[in-house]
Amino acid sequence: MTPTRTFSPVLVVGTGLLGTSVALGLRRLDVDVLLHDASPAAMHLAADYGAGRVATALDASTASEGDTPRIVVVCVPPDVTAQVVAEQLRAWPDAIVTDVASVKAAPLEALRADGADLARYTGSHPMAGRETGGPLAGRADLFIGRPWVIATHERTTVHALQEIEGLALDLGATTVAMTADEHDDAVALVSHVPQLVSSGVAGLLLGDEVGASSLAGGGLRDVTRIAASDTALWGQILTANGPRVARILRELAGGLGELADALDAPDAPGARRRIAEHMRAGNEGVMRLPGKHGGRRTFSVVTVMVDDRPGQLARLFNEIGAANINVEEISLEHSPGANIGLASISVVPEVRQRLVDELEALGWRVAQ
Amino acid sequence: MTPTRTFSPVLVVGTGLLGTSVALGLRRLDVDVLLHDASPAAMHLAADYGAGRVATALDASTASEGDTPRIVVVCVPPDVTAQVVAEQLRAWPDAIVTDVASVKAAPLEALRADGADLARYTGSHPMAGRETGGPLAGRADLFIGRPWVIATHERTTVHALQEIEGLALDLGATTVAMTADEHDDAVALVSHVPQLVSSGVAGLLLGDEVGASSLAGGGLRDVTRIAASDTALWGQILTANGPRVARILRELAGGLGELADALDAPDAPGARRRIAEHMRAGNEGVMRLPGKHGGRRTFSVVTVMVDDRPGQLARLFNEIGAANINVEEISLEHSPGANIGLASISVVPEVRQRLVDELEALGWRVAQ
Repeated sequence: MTPTRTFSPVLVVGTGLLGTSVALGLRRLDVDVLLHDASPAAMHLAADYGAGRVATALDASTASEGDTPRIVVVCVPPDVTAQVVAEQLRAWPDAIVTDVASVKAAPLEALRADGADLARYTGSHPMAGRETGGPLAGRADLFIGRPWVIATHERTTVHALQEIEGLALDLGATTVAMTADEHDDAVALVSHVPQLVSSGVAGLLLGDEVGASSLAGGGLRDVTRIAASDTALWGQILTANGPRVARILRELAGGLGELADALDAPDAPGARRRIAEHMRAGNEGVMRLPGKHGGRRTFSVVTVMVDDRPGQLARLFNEIGAANINVEEISLEHSPGANIGLASISVVPEVRQRLVDELEALGWRVAQ
Repeated sequence: MTPTRTFSPVLVVGTGLLGTSVALGLRRLDVDVLLHDASPAAMHLAADYGAGRVATALDASTASEGDTPRIVVVCVPPDVTAQVVAEQLRAWPDAIVTDVASVKAAPLEALRADGADLARYTGSHPMAGRETGGPLAGRADLFIGRPWVIATHERTTVHALQEIEGLALDLGATTVAMTADEHDDAVALVSHVPQLVSSGVAGLLLGDEVGASSLAGGGLRDVTRIAASDTALWGQILTANGPRVARILRELAGGLGELADALDAPDAPGARRRIAEHMRAGNEGVMRLPGKHGGRRTFSVVTVMVDDRPGQLARLFNEIGAANINVEEISLEHSPGANIGLASISVVPEVRQRLVDELEALGWRVAQ
């Protein structure tokens, strides 16, 4: 067990997915965790789940020393984050307070306007989540290897930064310092706009009059996967970052509108070039995304046909393991209507040929 | 080996990914396949790859009976499809000719204008492909379980339909009959617009000035995966289906523009409702997509932590197989920077709890 940077006790306010995950991760390091939630049911559920003990004293005036947190982590929905942070700053005059809301400028502005003690507050945002919510979706490992933004401001102290960094590092995250404005610009681009676009494309399927959905392939599935996200939570996130999201959305919508003009008259001067440039910008943009392990390493893919019955995947991975080949990524794709699947196995390029040879020698049907 | 519906020989014109895959699939059934391509290099490569024999006679006047195709499958880029189909109809006056281009109305109109013998031509479109192209990307199993659209028109004969259906079924596909217009409407919605949107979102990353890409998560990766698609091929596909794609693109861009207005002033009357409705339409739209095996069955997901070293996945799937549990879908996700992966295992809901119990009893760390 690595020595922890986080001092006990930590108070986690809000025991949903993120709060429970923070608490479970700290409990694994034997940090003492106090839990509070406006919903007694959620709070007790998280405690039963092993996330810590229910806080009995809710401010410094009534708390014993052992129940007085050095750091308070506010994990409540974005629209009440500023209010709860302000309450916690007042309740614990010696504590550092942070939050994990996915927008950072609006809460900071609200706290500034409220005259809050900003020397003790610096917001943060772990870039981790799941499609399901609630305490039971919490995972101690949720933050491992994920970026954790610390949204520093002009009054952030070295002490506050160290406390919050220590917490993030203890939970296995990688810290990234940026301002609240930079953070909100960044998430508008990499999270909020992609969410709205995915929802928009999925929403178009409601107008499908020709049974087009039955022809859908993997591309549409990928583009629309996050369209299944939670409507209420996203409403709060998006409105809290409204103008930044709107600006990028207009840029995108304008580009798509110009593209529509080009598609309506592809033989007009410049039209084909407009279409090609749109595709090429996409090619280049997607290369900007970091790959696995934070690097840009690309893998070679070997596709194997697998019968759709128990034991086949076991045999496959058994034999890959026996060949001492490490699988980097896998995906299993089923052909609709067929009783076979295609397992795509990503490996480092150096071992690709050996994997193909080994599998073919063992009788697997390997494609490409 | 199942008896084939396809009579020998078949002539495949164009030995790229699709042509080579058609040929390889037919060769597996011992159908005699003749190959032709404007590029001798591609043609000989496909022949060497086992896709068939190089055609020596290129029209009925010079061909022996054994070299006279009963069906010709044109697998060339969309912009030359109509021209090559017309040539093949003239070259082989007794043959049925089909093509596999991903747009269907434009080639049909061009052939109609050209006075081609439409009784012997009906286009088709197998909904299958890969990100890589060329003969060596060809796979005999490419079409297994995939929808194969047959774009019937007013002069399609029962004989032509049966020949093309037989070919598609022999290759393992599921046939879907619709008109060329219906097909092009459908693919605009489920393929062409998603492609342009994915490219558009990826293209936005070129304007990233705050290092936002380093915060990218799985959602952005999914939305932008197909942005890596081939620019030249897509230019042809999109221009051949221009106005249909433009109409849907404008609908989407208009919706995103309205959303931007709502986000700029979320407290204006109706703004929050506009945002919520956009998200909700996405939730509903994504439910329209067929699930595995063409049905709408949903699976339960169990997430297991796996060390990033050889043999771990083997052990996991071995133990799942030993429990006689069938894995429906799997995905392996790596935390950037961490030496652990999370394997998400989808199973039918009935066995989910048993899987969790078995894995936990064996010492696996199971989340949620």
